Amino acid sequence: MEKSTPIGLIAGMGMIYGAIFMGQGWQTFFDVPSIVLVLGGTVCALLVGFSMNEIKQVLPGLKAFFSFSTPDLANYVEDFSKLSRTARREGLLALDRSIAELEDEFMSFGLQMAVDGIEEEAIAKLMNHKIREDLRQRNFIARFFTMAGTYCPAFGMLGTLIGLIQMLQNLTDPSQIGAGMAMALITTFYGALFANLIFLPMADKMKTQVGEVLKMHEMIQAGVMSIVQGDGPSMIEKRLRLYLGNTTGDDDTGEEPELAKAA
Amino acid sequence: MEKSTPIGLIAGMGMIYGAIFMGQGWQTFFDVPSIVLVLGGTVCALLVGFSMNEIKQVLPGLKAFFSFSTPDLANYVEDFSKLSRTARREGLLALDRSIAELEDEFMSFGLQMAVDGIEEEAIAKLMNHKIREDLRQRNFIARFFTMAGTYCPAFGMLGTLIGLIQMLQNLTDPSQIGAGMAMALITTFYGALFANLIFLPMADKMKTQVGEVLKMHEMIQAGVMSIVQGDGPSMIEKRLRLYLGNTTGDDDTGEEPELAKAA
Amino acid sequence: MEKSTPIGLIAGMGMIYGAIFMGQGWQTFFDVPSIVLVLGGTVCALLVGFSMNEIKQVLPGLKAFFSFSTPDLANYVEDFSKLSRTARREGLLALDRSIAELEDEFMSFGLQMAVDGIEEEAIAKLMNHKIREDLRQRNFIARFFTMAGTYCPAFGMLGTLIGLIQMLQNLTDPSQIGAGMAMALITTFYGALFANLIFLPMADKMKTQVGEVLKMHEMIQAGVMSIVQGDGPSMIEKRLRLYLGNTTGDDDTGEEPELAKAA
Amino acid sequence: MEKSTPIGLIAGMGMIYGAIFMGQGWQTFFDVPSIVLVLGGTVCALLVGFSMNEIKQVLPGLKAFFSFSTPDLANYVEDFSKLSRTARREGLLALDRSIAELEDEFMSFGLQMAVDGIEEEAIAKLMNHKIREDLRQRNFIARFFTMAGTYCPAFGMLGTLIGLIQMLQNLTDPSQIGAGMAMALITTFYGALFANLIFLPMADKMKTQVGEVLKMHEMIQAGVMSIVQGDGPSMIEKRLRLYLGNTTGDDDTGEEPELAKAA
Amino acid sequence: MEKSTPIGLIAGMGMIYGAIFMGQGWQTFFDVPSIVLVLGGTVCALLVGFSMNEIKQVLPGLKAFFSFSTPDLANYVEDFSKLSRTARREGLLALDRSIAELEDEFMSFGLQMAVDGIEEEAIAKLMNHKIREDLRQRNFIARFFTMAGTYCPAFGMLGTLIGLIQMLQNLTDPSQIGAGMAMALITTFYGALFANLIFLPMADKMKTQVGEVLKMHEMIQAGVMSIVQGDGPSMIEKRLRLYLGNTTGDDDTGEEPELAKAA
Repeated sequence: MEKSTPIGLIAGMGMIYGAIFMGQGWQTFFDVPSIVLVLGGTVCALLVGFSMNEIKQVLPGLKAFFSFSTPDLANYVEDFSKLSRTARREGLLALDRSIAELEDEFMSFGLQMAVDGIEEEAIAKLMNHKIREDLRQRNFIARFFTMAGTYCPAFGMLGTLIGLIQMLQNLTDPSQIGAGMAMALITTFYGALFANLIFLPMADKMKTQVGEVLKMHEMIQAGVMSIVQGDGPSMIEKRLRLYLGNTTGDDDTGEEPELAKAA
Repeated sequence: MEKSTPIGLIAGMGMIYGAIFMGQGWQTFFDVPSIVLVLGGTVCALLVGFSMNEIKQVLPGLKAFFSFSTPDLANYVEDFSKLSRTARREGLLALDRSIAELEDEFMSFGLQMAVDGIEEEAIAKLMNHKIREDLRQRNFIARFFTMAGTYCPAFGMLGTLIGLIQMLQNLTDPSQIGAGMAMALITTFYGALFANLIFLPMADKMKTQVGEVLKMHEMIQAGVMSIVQGDGPSMIEKRLRLYLGNTTGDDDTGEEPELAKAA
Repeated sequence: MEKSTPIGLIAGMGMIYGAIFMGQGWQTFFDVPSIVLVLGGTVCALLVGFSMNEIKQVLPGLKAFFSFSTPDLANYVEDFSKLSRTARREGLLALDRSIAELEDEFMSFGLQMAVDGIEEEAIAKLMNHKIREDLRQRNFIARFFTMAGTYCPAFGMLGTLIGLIQMLQNLTDPSQIGAGMAMALITTFYGALFANLIFLPMADKMKTQVGEVLKMHEMIQAGVMSIVQGDGPSMIEKRLRLYLGNTTGDDDTGEEPELAKAA
Repeated sequence: MEKSTPIGLIAGMGMIYGAIFMGQGWQTFFDVPSIVLVLGGTVCALLVGFSMNEIKQVLPGLKAFFSFSTPDLANYVEDFSKLSRTARREGLLALDRSIAELEDEFMSFGLQMAVDGIEEEAIAKLMNHKIREDLRQRNFIARFFTMAGTYCPAFGMLGTLIGLIQMLQNLTDPSQIGAGMAMALITTFYGALFANLIFLPMADKMKTQVGEVLKMHEMIQAGVMSIVQGDGPSMIEKRLRLYLGNTTGDDDTGEEPELAKAA
Repeated sequence: MEKSTPIGLIAGMGMIYGAIFMGQGWQTFFDVPSIVLVLGGTVCALLVGFSMNEIKQVLPGLKAFFSFSTPDLANYVEDFSKLSRTARREGLLALDRSIAELEDEFMSFGLQMAVDGIEEEAIAKLMNHKIREDLRQRNFIARFFTMAGTYCPAFGMLGTLIGLIQMLQNLTDPSQIGAGMAMALITTFYGALFANLIFLPMADKMKTQVGEVLKMHEMIQAGVMSIVQGDGPSMIEKRLRLYLGNTTGDDDTGEEPELAKAA
């Protein structure tokens, strides 16, 4: 599980409520009706805006969201290099055994087609297609959270408008003005808090995961296509290592030509 | 009919007006002139911004919007597999009978061309073209609601400005200031409510429907092209099942290679 | 002339000023210096941002804007079907006479090239080019109004800032505060009114017109290319009818497969 | 030099300060420290955001910006028609003399390659490349002004925040509140004024110039490629006249088919 | 190291705090808890929104950000011209020695493949791939700063909301209202300051660097491909000089055809 998300959520909530406890009147900041109004309004707007079919995917999507961990791409280089040696030595059909042992579903999807003798172009097309469909769900979750982060402050503002209008009608007791405005502002506070600490950052994270899954799938596709085209193990490694680029750090040297020249 | 939209609309309105009834002065929140100003202004801006031709499409578009239900894509896999078996056994011309029984207008449009002997490329082009034209109306409705959701808060703010300016000119009676500002803010409240609970979420839903119709049409196109190219039933099923991907849930296993490896 | 635009403008202005007359102090809402400041500032910003060459195109562009009416695409299907029969019977050169009778300048531009024996690819390219150049002016008008709708509220806010700053310096007479703020807010009112009822909706309308002209030109191009390629009248009709799609309403049946299946 | 920019700037400033002089307390609106804060902050943000290399290009870019005048495209049609006649009569090499007399650097760049016998595809590619590089500087200036127009109101707001916070700490003398708030708002006024009258419109103008230069270069490229391909003078004129389209006004007739038909 | 960034940061901070020191109550503007709240909240939102894997790249990315200096492209023209002469005289294999002496890692990556006899298309593809992977890290840093600049003002506003709500509940002592509001506004001040002077401009700078690295890599790729294709030194120089275009200034003459013609 990706640790930075719960760390950020807990630390953020702790910091905000820490600041609140340091001041006076922290009770105002635990107002259940306001939370219900802001989150309830957001949920209703999302119900209007998404289909039942999509809303059913939110919970499994959330599970996938939290159980996701950045794939270790280096393993794939090794796997493909081994598979390519087998294919060269014993032919593509010999990969049949290896496929059964693969844990990656997308990798076996591609290699199985290679073993089945489906032609190169069709494999590339079907793999492209599968990548697109696989990303559809993750992209939906990202869009869902983005919408949640958009409607949440809007319903916070609506709650504040309701509170303000009610307060303004009863200005007879000036001592109540402050408390009334404080109450009215609480929904704006919740709307901004939920949007900026939870919904929008989680949409960001989902986009990050989409990027990582896409990169992994592109790498697997490149590997499968290399094996189908009969490339040698060294060529495959060369090609796939490019996907690991920014973890080695060596590539950076090329970006300071002036410095290097001065040396 | 898609149930989540009316559920969201009713629950949202109920929640907002529930919050209002819990406070004082709920009469203020039923102000017909304010509603007329906000919605009327929005309608006028939309009249300026769209052509009569387009505005006539709004009502039928709304009907299609509410009567839409997510297509069951799994049925299509079966249909195409059956059609492909017929085409292989008895030739493309034998599909003529089956087409008459098809309920999907887009599917029969494509297959009819195949039976008529129109060449592959032309079929693909005309189907692409038909997909684009079919989406034009739905996209227009989405754009219409997006514009409504954009102008609605603007006219809410205009109403508030009018109320504020009128109130500010009559500050002689301080006891009226609160009531005046409350009245002025009501249009902002309506503008934000209509935009965020109705117009913008309905534009979202329309975009969702566009996505689902597009996916269905792409699947049908892939099926028709497969039959034209003479692919076997198993290949067609393989290709079309990709469109169902995210409902089986099996595809997700491939996305946690680390976890799987640890097992 | 497109009727919805003047209807929307007049109804919108009537509604807003109706609401104003129902309240007190409607004189405030007819403040010529404020209108001059808001519109004048907007015009100056547009002068800075566009070239003389472009500004000269605004008036003719506005004339075209108001005289535009949605083309009746069905006529073109008939025209092309007739032309195709002539071309098949008597050869492409026989179209020369028919071209003289065509009212549509773009259609005769394309067909003349066909008669002149220019090759297929060059005709497609030159027609594409002409479409792009024809849309340039309309797109410019759309961009011009969008910019007007962006600068207008900004100068409204500037006017309010000036009014506020002047008022705040003379707080000695509290009875004048309200009137001063009311005056200051008038420019914001004008900025929001002009932008949301006039400039931005007119930019929307221009984009609508661009879409309709583009669709018509694409249809004409498809028709000309079909004739050049020697397609038969029935094939041309089939192809061109796709552009009329959403007016017949028949196409919608294909989008509710579940409903149809249940029947 | 393009006259509309200085006219707009001077008229806009005159109008705004005219409105200010008509009211009281115009001295407040000439506050040098506030101008320094707003413009200085903007300059600092731009220094952080651009490289020294780019900042050095701002002054020459500004010079080009003001010395730019819309190219007269009709001249190019004539030039190319003449060149094409020469090329047809005496061969491509005969253009060598004419190139020396060309004032347009991009035109001679392209034709020189044609005379040097570089092949068609390479000429097209190098001309494309040169267009892209030529536009890079202008696009940079547009982006520079857009950023200036974004940061400027932000620093105006920062200045107002500083003024507000300082004033709020000294509420002991109520007679000073108004003057304090007036002073605080001055930076917001400057930020909005500079952004909406100067920076953002100048970014618009730069984009307009980019469009005009691009159109001119595309026309020259089309002309050069036509000569290389050996097209006749009439074909070249036909092709290049398309670029002049919207100045003749004749093209508009084709856009009102209904009107024309009624006649 | 790029000097404009630290100059802008220091001058900007100096200017803002200079303005503060000129007024009263500068102590308010050094409020550590407010800074902690704004920056801490931003960091938490970024933790939620990015993966651990990405967050680990921020520090090395920052180092690269500050150590970056605009590459001197003119050197590459010379290098490639020399390499091309060697390749022509002694064959591609003779470049092997020269590669060892190259300081640019990307250049040797490409040339090594040429020496190894990998075919043209594969070299182009792998170089494209490497460019994309190299830019991924820089683009990530740009996106990271953009997000920081987005969340920072949001948490500033949250802090102000907390302060306002707490103050409004204690309106009993009117003399404290000003100080309370001043304190509440400080977080908004920090949010706007950090976003507009630090985070957003640094995201701009990173995008500038991405553009410069991309241009350099495209130039190197063009050079390598030219050598592989066996182009002569003069052709290579012609092609690569295009990348230097806007530094010589000569290219600008072509953009004022009217002026030139008048001369």
